[in-house]
Amino acid sequence: MSGVLYGIGLGPGDPELITVKAARLIASADVIAYPALAGTASFARSIVADLLPAGAPEIVMSIPMTTERGPAQKAYDVGAAQIADQLDAGRSVACLCEGDPFFYGSFMYVFARLSPQYDVQVVPGVTSVTACAARAGRPLAARNERLTILPGPLDAKELRHRIDGAESVAIMKVGRHLPKIRKVIADLGLTAQAIYVERASLPDEVICPLDTAPEVAPYFSMILLTKGADPWL
Amino acid sequence: MSGVLYGIGLGPGDPELITVKAARLIASADVIAYPALAGTASFARSIVADLLPAGAPEIVMSIPMTTERGPAQKAYDVGAAQIADQLDAGRSVACLCEGDPFFYGSFMYVFARLSPQYDVQVVPGVTSVTACAARAGRPLAARNERLTILPGPLDAKELRHRIDGAESVAIMKVGRHLPKIRKVIADLGLTAQAIYVERASLPDEVICPLDTAPEVAPYFSMILLTKGADPWL
Repeated sequence: MSGVLYGIGLGPGDPELITVKAARLIASADVIAYPALAGTASFARSIVADLLPAGAPEIVMSIPMTTERGPAQKAYDVGAAQIADQLDAGRSVACLCEGDPFFYGSFMYVFARLSPQYDVQVVPGVTSVTACAARAGRPLAARNERLTILPGPLDAKELRHRIDGAESVAIMKVGRHLPKIRKVIADLGLTAQAIYVERASLPDEVICPLDTAPEVAPYFSMILLTKGADPWL
Repeated sequence: MSGVLYGIGLGPGDPELITVKAARLIASADVIAYPALAGTASFARSIVADLLPAGAPEIVMSIPMTTERGPAQKAYDVGAAQIADQLDAGRSVACLCEGDPFFYGSFMYVFARLSPQYDVQVVPGVTSVTACAARAGRPLAARNERLTILPGPLDAKELRHRIDGAESVAIMKVGRHLPKIRKVIADLGLTAQAIYVERASLPDEVICPLDTAPEVAPYFSMILLTKGADPWL
């Protein structure tokens, strides 16, 4: 009988923000798998380093640093094949994923490859969006408010259009797109309402108004725009 | 010295989907607070019933069942005053909240009242959106895709407009709005892509294509619309 593949969301980075279920499944897994940007330590692995079962084999999916899709997809092909070998041998595999597996998570690529043939169970995690809001003290949406999640790499015209038609907005993956996003928000007259959050829940977290944000943002950074004036009272 | 108020997200309902941090803070709190719909048991309390510290006083915020805002706000006024009394006496208070406190969460109302005067810390939780996606096996958003969260109570015209301009969509709080939402989605020709999820992660969970969904939906139900065809490969 094939083993079960667990796609496990680990939340934003604080090891205490993983779920009880994630902790249990990781500690009891036969094999651990995770992505790592080529040449760097895996952020996902670092979140749960203290929970990994001693001696469990680890499958590292080394993702090349490029915006081209082909090379990354190839890395997931290789990783999925290695995971499949373990499942075929009847072993359970815990595949680690920062944040939530189905919310811009790397596990989607493994899921697409293996869910047709194997028992794949997805364990949701705390997303960076609610973690940033919690740390910034900024409610995202109440009652009948709408919330729009936008990736920072969208082009300026698209970003402007989408922010303009939205209510609350979270802009993910800010990184090197910060100057472009900053200008779009300034043009819309919304800078005073924008909060910048970097590496929420981690020891080197940064939270500040957008107009005092650093010039250079890491990949794990976000901008929150909540348009309403105290709409939750 | 005043006590600390913790606003604690409990996730979608499965007691294992609370975070390690939530479990720790609840077990060590001096006082527990939570909302309950008037005349019913508190869903939030039921999620963590096994973790509550023996003998800790409990503050129940009894929320009247009405769509009017006044009576509910009054209940939060009363609850916030009771919590403040405990904080003033130097006791820590863990305020329980289904899902995530700042994502359509009841804790926002307590936060608005007490965060100006007290040390309030918000602990994010797994949202129903990613829990539903995980259970349904439906990735929400990858790469540069947009995700829009819409509350079901929005009127039909607004819903149609917002769904039409969106990519991936999650419609929350479906409940008695199911017939209206179903019609909007049918008019847009999107029924075949819509998944209905009720009480995700709980023992009586329901997951099915929208066209076979029950006629009557509970408040904790959701519709997921992911427009792309396998966009995550």
